[in-house]
Amino acid sequence: MDTINSISYPVIFKDTLTQLVNFIEQGNYSRFFILTDEHTGEHCLPLLQERLEHLNNSYDVIEVNAGEESKNIDFCAGIWKMLIDFGADRHSLMINLGGGVIGDMGGFAASTYKRGIDFVQVPTTLLSQVDASVGGKTGIDFDNLKNIIGTFTQPKAVFIEPAFLQTLPQRQILSGYAEMLKHGLIQDAAYWSELKGADINAAPAPELVYQSVAIKNKVVVDDPFEKGFRKCLNFGHTVGHAVETYSLLNDGSKHLTHGEAIAIGMICEAWLSHKNAGLTTDELNEITTVLNNLYPRYELDETCHSVLHSLMKTDKKNQNGNINCTLLNKIGECSIDHICTEEELCDSLRYYAGL
Amino acid sequence: MDTINSISYPVIFKDTLTQLVNFIEQGNYSRFFILTDEHTGEHCLPLLQERLEHLNNSYDVIEVNAGEESKNIDFCAGIWKMLIDFGADRHSLMINLGGGVIGDMGGFAASTYKRGIDFVQVPTTLLSQVDASVGGKTGIDFDNLKNIIGTFTQPKAVFIEPAFLQTLPQRQILSGYAEMLKHGLIQDAAYWSELKGADINAAPAPELVYQSVAIKNKVVVDDPFEKGFRKCLNFGHTVGHAVETYSLLNDGSKHLTHGEAIAIGMICEAWLSHKNAGLTTDELNEITTVLNNLYPRYELDETCHSVLHSLMKTDKKNQNGNINCTLLNKIGECSIDHICTEEELCDSLRYYAGL
Ligand SMILES: NC(=O)c1ccc[n+]([C@@H]2O[C@H](COP(=O)([O-])OP(=O)(O)OC[C@H]3O[C@@H](n4cnc5c(N)ncnc54)[C@H](O)[C@@H]3O)[C@@H](O)[C@H]2O)c1
Ligand SMILES: NC(=O)c1ccc[n+]([C@@H]2O[C@H](COP(=O)([O-])OP(=O)(O)OC[C@H]3O[C@@H](n4cnc5c(N)ncnc54)[C@H](O)[C@@H]3O)[C@@H](O)[C@H]2O)c1
Ligand SMILES: [Zn+2]
Ligand SMILES: [Zn+2]
Repeated sequence: MDTINSISYPVIFKDTLTQLVNFIEQGNYSRFFILTDEHTGEHCLPLLQERLEHLNNSYDVIEVNAGEESKNIDFCAGIWKMLIDFGADRHSLMINLGGGVIGDMGGFAASTYKRGIDFVQVPTTLLSQVDASVGGKTGIDFDNLKNIIGTFTQPKAVFIEPAFLQTLPQRQILSGYAEMLKHGLIQDAAYWSELKGADINAAPAPELVYQSVAIKNKVVVDDPFEKGFRKCLNFGHTVGHAVETYSLLNDGSKHLTHGEAIAIGMICEAWLSHKNAGLTTDELNEITTVLNNLYPRYELDETCHSVLHSLMKTDKKNQNGNINCTLLNKIGECSIDHICTEEELCDSLRYYAGL
Repeated sequence: MDTINSISYPVIFKDTLTQLVNFIEQGNYSRFFILTDEHTGEHCLPLLQERLEHLNNSYDVIEVNAGEESKNIDFCAGIWKMLIDFGADRHSLMINLGGGVIGDMGGFAASTYKRGIDFVQVPTTLLSQVDASVGGKTGIDFDNLKNIIGTFTQPKAVFIEPAFLQTLPQRQILSGYAEMLKHGLIQDAAYWSELKGADINAAPAPELVYQSVAIKNKVVVDDPFEKGFRKCLNFGHTVGHAVETYSLLNDGSKHLTHGEAIAIGMICEAWLSHKNAGLTTDELNEITTVLNNLYPRYELDETCHSVLHSLMKTDKKNQNGNINCTLLNKIGECSIDHICTEEELCDSLRYYAGL
């Protein structure tokens, strides 16, 4: 449990901060920049800064507001402007210290500043550690569409430091845990069994995080531009994304975290898997029970089905107006490109609502 | 004189519009978009549209205001918005029909929309045909800095159609011609001789355009990410860019085209080449005479030297605060990374002013 080699860069799990400092020192960068949000500026930046004191390289900190609402072109332009004002040249390095918002937006800003400067990811949420750390996706939201603008650009390295998870709220831990459960369901039945029994009142053991990254990395390395099997990572996300967006649009009801929405999506898509892809009744029940116990209930009554369906239709991954799902053939194995009808999708929502 | 193969795509010179239509038909695109500005919408789009009538694929036209002032994040966001509203998916194609502004901004918008959709360039100015057609640079201006935001993304193909140059104003022809002269000066003495004697009251012969693209392409293919010798294309641009920006900042004086500014830059840098890189007096005189006769004079008195110098210091290509020039060893041969002092640069401006 040391380093995972992704497409063109290492994901580092051991002596993370020491290795980050070494990376900076050896990189011959003219200067570097640390991007944080309010929370990671408070909780994570100090841990990093005490390691940087002896460095000669000068650096600046750029802080943005926390939360998905900041992941837009205005904040991105703000980052570009700060880079310009701080005199960032082509040999500068950007260090994205934060969750997926910081990683995605900082990666996008870096990949487009002067046609691309180097950046590294230091994910500080469980979600960004297990999910955003490999794949090379950068992006911002635009016109109410998530990640609609972005690039495929690999970071120079990713540093996964368990210590950062100590300050992460439990709800954010659970959000990342949903992706880990997904990794088990689509690729590794033994890992799923381990996870479903694990204690997740605190951050999961580093070994489990490592295993998740390893699973995602294998998928991504085989299909870097999402042309084929990488879509397996989409399990739970066709319905889940729609539920997430729906919860954000409806001010009346509670906003869901990504993981909470994906958990609902996985229950619905497990039902679809049972119907169309061979998942057994026992497996469906097992998945449903685990997810339904871990994640809070969310009301999805009949009136929202048509809204959810149109949200699913706008998914980036659709083609020719069909709604595509990744479904489970059994726990630990999946297949892509199952076209699901509106009726089937609504029935799966009814299954969730009826639990 | 048919096709030049660039990094990963062809630059097509023959039966251009037919080949573009073939490309669209064979590309299996869900739909396509044509980006124009007011002028290319009027002069160039009709030539293309009459070829598209029999196509089944549906397409939409996106038009932006003409000119460098449109090459910014607001217009880019406008293009993204139109793509969203028109329902562009990942299998859409963008056709950039226009000069460098359309090519750069359209390329940037396409390279970042849904993390990158295919695009082709149909350059309609001489400058964009001979310069922007190879190199994979996309970009927009931001915070008064030219091309500060962008990506390196190769188009799927480039179509160079001489017919489009028929409606191009003479001043724009001359602007592109400056880059052609540069190609001769840095790489090919015979080509320089041919150009300096050519009639440029109209668009230059297609063979000459072809030769320029071939020269630039050779340089770019050898150094796609501008790490080394590609800087040879920078001849005339250290001083020239500063003069261009200066002319745009100063509302009182006339705005220069890119080529007009580069012509001045080439005179100054030829003088620096004579001083520091072995260019002979005869060669300096020849270059000076040709450029000074072709391009309008521009007043650069002592008071503007410090402004010009600080503009040169902000050049993207500088490192460690030094001003780097590409200089000519002789006509047809150059070398990169000559550090020039403020005094030398001012002296070269004085040389130009004293002509
Ligand atoms: N690029 C990818 O492959 C990929 C994959 C998954 C998700 N994402 C993106 O990631 C985003 C969601 O990621 P996220 O959940 O990390 O969001 P986030 O970055 O908004 O972080 C969630 C919250 O936790 C706070 N936080 C972060 N680290 C902390 C720490 N160590 N201690 C205390 N608080 C901390 C943040 O300030 C924020 O309030 C979405 O925008 C999603 O699109 C990207
Ligand atoms: N990507 C690259 O490698 C590269 C290289 C050189 C220049 N550039 C960029 O290109 C831009 C300058 O290019 P440009 O000079 O083509 O600018 P431009 O696109 O603004 O075109 C100049 C003018 O000519 C008009 N025009 C274009 N085609 C016409 C036609 N066929 N008939 C009549 N009018 C026509 C335009 O509407 C505009 O008014 C700058 O932004 C520069 O940064 C990029
Ligand atoms: Zn997810
Ligand atoms: Zn130029």
